[in-house]
Amino acid sequence: MDASVQTLSFLHNVRLFKGVETQTIQKFANNAVPRSLNKGSMLCFPEDQADHFFVMRNGWIKLSRSSVDGQEAVLDILTRNSVFGETALFGDGAYGWSAEVVEDADFLALPSKLLRTYVEKDPILAVNLITSMTKIRKRQDGEIERFILQNAPQRVGCFLLKLVPTDVVEEGLPCPAIDLPFNKSLLATKLGMTPETFSRALKTLKNNAGLKIQGVTVQINDINSLDKYVCRSCSNSYPCEHVE
Amino acid sequence: MDASVQTLSFLHNVRLFKGVETQTIQKFANNAVPRSLNKGSMLCFPEDQADHFFVMRNGWIKLSRSSVDGQEAVLDILTRNSVFGETALFGDGAYGWSAEVVEDADFLALPSKLLRTYVEKDPILAVNLITSMTKIRKRQDGEIERFILQNAPQRVGCFLLKLVPTDVVEEGLPCPAIDLPFNKSLLATKLGMTPETFSRALKTLKNNAGLKIQGVTVQINDINSLDKYVCRSCSNSYPCEHVE
Repeated sequence: MDASVQTLSFLHNVRLFKGVETQTIQKFANNAVPRSLNKGSMLCFPEDQADHFFVMRNGWIKLSRSSVDGQEAVLDILTRNSVFGETALFGDGAYGWSAEVVEDADFLALPSKLLRTYVEKDPILAVNLITSMTKIRKRQDGEIERFILQNAPQRVGCFLLKLVPTDVVEEGLPCPAIDLPFNKSLLATKLGMTPETFSRALKTLKNNAGLKIQGVTVQINDINSLDKYVCRSCSNSYPCEHVE
Repeated sequence: MDASVQTLSFLHNVRLFKGVETQTIQKFANNAVPRSLNKGSMLCFPEDQADHFFVMRNGWIKLSRSSVDGQEAVLDILTRNSVFGETALFGDGAYGWSAEVVEDADFLALPSKLLRTYVEKDPILAVNLITSMTKIRKRQDGEIERFILQNAPQRVGCFLLKLVPTDVVEEGLPCPAIDLPFNKSLLATKLGMTPETFSRALKTLKNNAGLKIQGVTVQINDINSLDKYVCRSCSNSYPCEHVE
């Protein structure tokens, strides 16, 4: 397959383009610029004009903002098939966050104006965008709820429970060892806590819910016990939603 | 003006319908049911099917969720011209929160399916919805950032700074006494803290930034001092955005 056919085929499988006519997706594929950046590179800053939006192919990119006094708040950590920067042109036109590569990343850069133009032309694309924003809004509602209602160990436990494979949950199988998607330090910032608070949270989970963590590998021996410790402080009962 | 003309004229001024043809807004006006509910009434629960979305005319409605063990997380408190429940039909079809009337409320109930139908027919309506969701996403990004980076007094101070009238900020005028939009107990839950934490936060703000609160009236004697105390822990410098 040549590069443009590969790009078309890749975009076909991205949810934003689900059900959209191939002819339209082809326009995006023709204008897509493949980019690769190494770990530690900055892709953009909050005040940058969002001329492009992005679709992840591989690796991890972190969206965050820093306070005037230099503390960092992580808003999202994205991997394969994630779309980001796509709504800036419907707001003030700036990204509103920094994007930093946290694991070597391949992604496509697509012109924001093209999306804006086709959202106005193609109701399927418009509805897809609204659907994805509805999903993000729901996830953000959940995050805000957890900041209000859960303590640090419960927030860590909630994250871990969502990593349990669906069939383990549905069929009550013993839970295999799970690898964290990224290192502990990054996970701590994603959950809005210092590395020290994160370490204390892990100790609490070990004592209260029999959890074991070695390096980036987690062993949940008793899902019910973890569920009991974590999910009573949430409006959803377990299993709620799994990381996609 | 008869009731339906009044409804049409009201909807014309709601942002969701900005620039939409009168003929289309008329369809919504024809299907709008005016409702009034007293303080303390429940409008809906999280698992309710979102057959209708709502536009506030007067009063205040609180959107919240409760954990299994009965703690409440407030997601939003809405007043005049706010639209809510409009995105449910683009997700799983349920509201996802409870709506409780916290000050006697008048609002319109409009069929969700009508919105879904016209979003697919009218690109202006689709773009308006995406624009309003972009604004909400940005606000939620800000809330998540504040939960990560700010302590309780800073979160209270941030809320108060946004109540300062724009001309006071822009022209450096002395700040008049400001009335809180709702009582302290509701404000505490909106900011995700217990009434005790909220009281301690006010005391801290009094000592560190010369703030005075009597009943629901706030006197900010030194905006710079409050700005310095609050905004260094945020990615935006003051003045950032005002409550709309």
